[in-house]
Amino acid sequence: MGSIVVQKYGGSSVATAEHIKAVAQRVKKSRESGLDLAVVVSAMGNTTDRLLALAREVSLAPSPREIDQLLSTGERQSVALLAMALHDRGVAATSLSGPQAGMKIEGRHGSGVISEIQPGRLRSLLAEGQVVIVAGFQGENASGDVTTLGRGGSDTTAVALAQALGADACELYTDVSGVFTADPRLVASARRIPHISFDEMLEMCATGCPKPAMRSVEFARTHGVRLHVRSAFTWEPGTWITEEDPMEQAIISGVVDDDSEAKVTVNGVPDRPGIAAHLFRTLADADINVDMIVQNVSAAGVTDISFTLPREDLAPGTQITSSIAEEIGATGVTTDERIARVSLIGAGMKSNPGVAATMFEVLAGQGVNIEMISTSAIRISCVIPEDDLEKAVNALHDAFELAAT
Amino acid sequence: MGSIVVQKYGGSSVATAEHIKAVAQRVKKSRESGLDLAVVVSAMGNTTDRLLALAREVSLAPSPREIDQLLSTGERQSVALLAMALHDRGVAATSLSGPQAGMKIEGRHGSGVISEIQPGRLRSLLAEGQVVIVAGFQGENASGDVTTLGRGGSDTTAVALAQALGADACELYTDVSGVFTADPRLVASARRIPHISFDEMLEMCATGCPKPAMRSVEFARTHGVRLHVRSAFTWEPGTWITEEDPMEQAIISGVVDDDSEAKVTVNGVPDRPGIAAHLFRTLADADINVDMIVQNVSAAGVTDISFTLPREDLAPGTQITSSIAEEIGATGVTTDERIARVSLIGAGMKSNPGVAATMFEVLAGQGVNIEMISTSAIRISCVIPEDDLEKAVNALHDAFELAAT
Repeated sequence: MGSIVVQKYGGSSVATAEHIKAVAQRVKKSRESGLDLAVVVSAMGNTTDRLLALAREVSLAPSPREIDQLLSTGERQSVALLAMALHDRGVAATSLSGPQAGMKIEGRHGSGVISEIQPGRLRSLLAEGQVVIVAGFQGENASGDVTTLGRGGSDTTAVALAQALGADACELYTDVSGVFTADPRLVASARRIPHISFDEMLEMCATGCPKPAMRSVEFARTHGVRLHVRSAFTWEPGTWITEEDPMEQAIISGVVDDDSEAKVTVNGVPDRPGIAAHLFRTLADADINVDMIVQNVSAAGVTDISFTLPREDLAPGTQITSSIAEEIGATGVTTDERIARVSLIGAGMKSNPGVAATMFEVLAGQGVNIEMISTSAIRISCVIPEDDLEKAVNALHDAFELAAT
Repeated sequence: MGSIVVQKYGGSSVATAEHIKAVAQRVKKSRESGLDLAVVVSAMGNTTDRLLALAREVSLAPSPREIDQLLSTGERQSVALLAMALHDRGVAATSLSGPQAGMKIEGRHGSGVISEIQPGRLRSLLAEGQVVIVAGFQGENASGDVTTLGRGGSDTTAVALAQALGADACELYTDVSGVFTADPRLVASARRIPHISFDEMLEMCATGCPKPAMRSVEFARTHGVRLHVRSAFTWEPGTWITEEDPMEQAIISGVVDDDSEAKVTVNGVPDRPGIAAHLFRTLADADINVDMIVQNVSAAGVTDISFTLPREDLAPGTQITSSIAEEIGATGVTTDERIARVSLIGAGMKSNPGVAATMFEVLAGQGVNIEMISTSAIRISCVIPEDDLEKAVNALHDAFELAAT
């Protein structure tokens, strides 16, 4: 066998029959270049949303097992259609559902975890010279029930398959042509990053960059799978995500913006051990995904705790927080929906202590008020007023010279 | 366990979310009456046609394996949705795809045959008090590939399941309320037949009565599964199809009409052994489904051979027949698209030799010219001009007093 490559095409790349034919053409070219190919495909366009709407029509609270049984048909359809389109182009190909491809899944329906891949059938098909098309997002649990990995699960399927097959690379095709130094819709001079480390990519995922799915990057880092994020609509190279390469390490790789969160502040919290634990445990139990948390040192025995959470969780999150605030004797709860987060990501930050100071100076120079700050070894995030987001991202992109090649 | 009943709902019974909720309501009532239920479901409404259209968009000649992979998703969707709708009504239910239900299939993709059912999982779910919803039309072959039974296959799934589970009955729900003494669209006084034998039902299937699928009736006869054809939209009893019961045997059970065929006649065929065999073998090899065949005794060493075939096969059938006619020295080939067939079916015919004569007299009395005749032990079929069909069916229905209860 030659080099094995896993390719993954998302739902927007296979949204229509025409799109599927274009993907088939691309797979054919890749195959003709001598690669052995396993191709992971998502459900066509809005199929998953359409099926979910149907489920809600017949049931107020559809069972997760049956939702998985229902949703998994979307990927089964797209793999069969892609195999047909390849046959039409003279390419030997076989489609496999998740269970047929040996994807074993454990954990809850709708958010399963790959426990094992038994790639026997897949390997023999590759050995026969077949392109193998695998349904993403799905597998089978120990009871033989179809179980899905949750949204973004096709990326994880692809990366896990690349690991199981010892593939040279896992190519994630999307509707953007890679990972950028900033969101091109906000920053005209944003530039595609040719190469980024797993750690930097994870920080980008965590701070709002939507693709690829964070879990798949974590999996790739753990197992050393080389990722290549690229566009399904062009042949230009995209962004490679691999182990860090110190030789070409930039101080800052990119600026990431996120305007999907809201902020909650509890004022006048008595400074006793266990209070923060109580609050965030209660929020976690209600499935509210708290992101940044900032607590200042206390003055006069009381402190303020601020945190961010997805805007759609603001109403239940505020309710829970208010009831706990009363219980612990805090003075009040305030919320703000009109915030945004701007983050600098860069592995080079570790050895460049002035980055944070520069960031704050740049924002101050633009008259942007910083409401919260949080940092990691390779990331600095500031919460700012939502209306200042575009100005802030552009100023930081310029200040750190990210447009330069 | 109580009595087991298998229910089967066709595509028109589950065409929309509203239909699925109505079926769930019916299943709930059946369950509350104390039955243990396995429910076989087809794909929603026109899903199969929509998926086939998609396949033809991506491929000129889609592979049968991939067509099966694609089409089998339709039933998977409807079983999941019906299970959800049952949960919403407080009924414990689990959906199973064909492979999950242990349906083992052999033979060609798109026209497989059930080789075995391994009902272990199904039985334990029934024992837990679950209603088990099974995807019709599909199973798994020895390679683990999804394989379908072809159109009408959900009836066969239901009957085979009834046999494997030792069910008391197999209820086939359709959009008509049973089997009728004649097509109610042609004959105003047509009456539902409360009870019919397997043999009569098979003759009805063979002569144009569209439901249930012939294969499922054959399977039920071989294995002694009691069938009940009834409407999904009312609670009235339909038609029972069981072993013949001589006590209540009518001479004639029904009149069946069929206007889907055309007639081909080869004139002046030299009367030599092997000529008919050559013609019909060639037609069979071209997948042309010849139905009635009539050959008269020869006069002066030549004879005429007439046969009927589906109208959509008339063009290729005529082409093949003409080339063979030339080869064997026949004098010519004529065709007629404007024919119809009217058939009398009745197990009592065997002991009433005058039925054929009465039929011909009735048709003659209406001025209807009989172009071909073919008989079996319990059926007489006449090919007549298409324009005379309605008149002929009504006259026969009256003459044999089928409207009387």
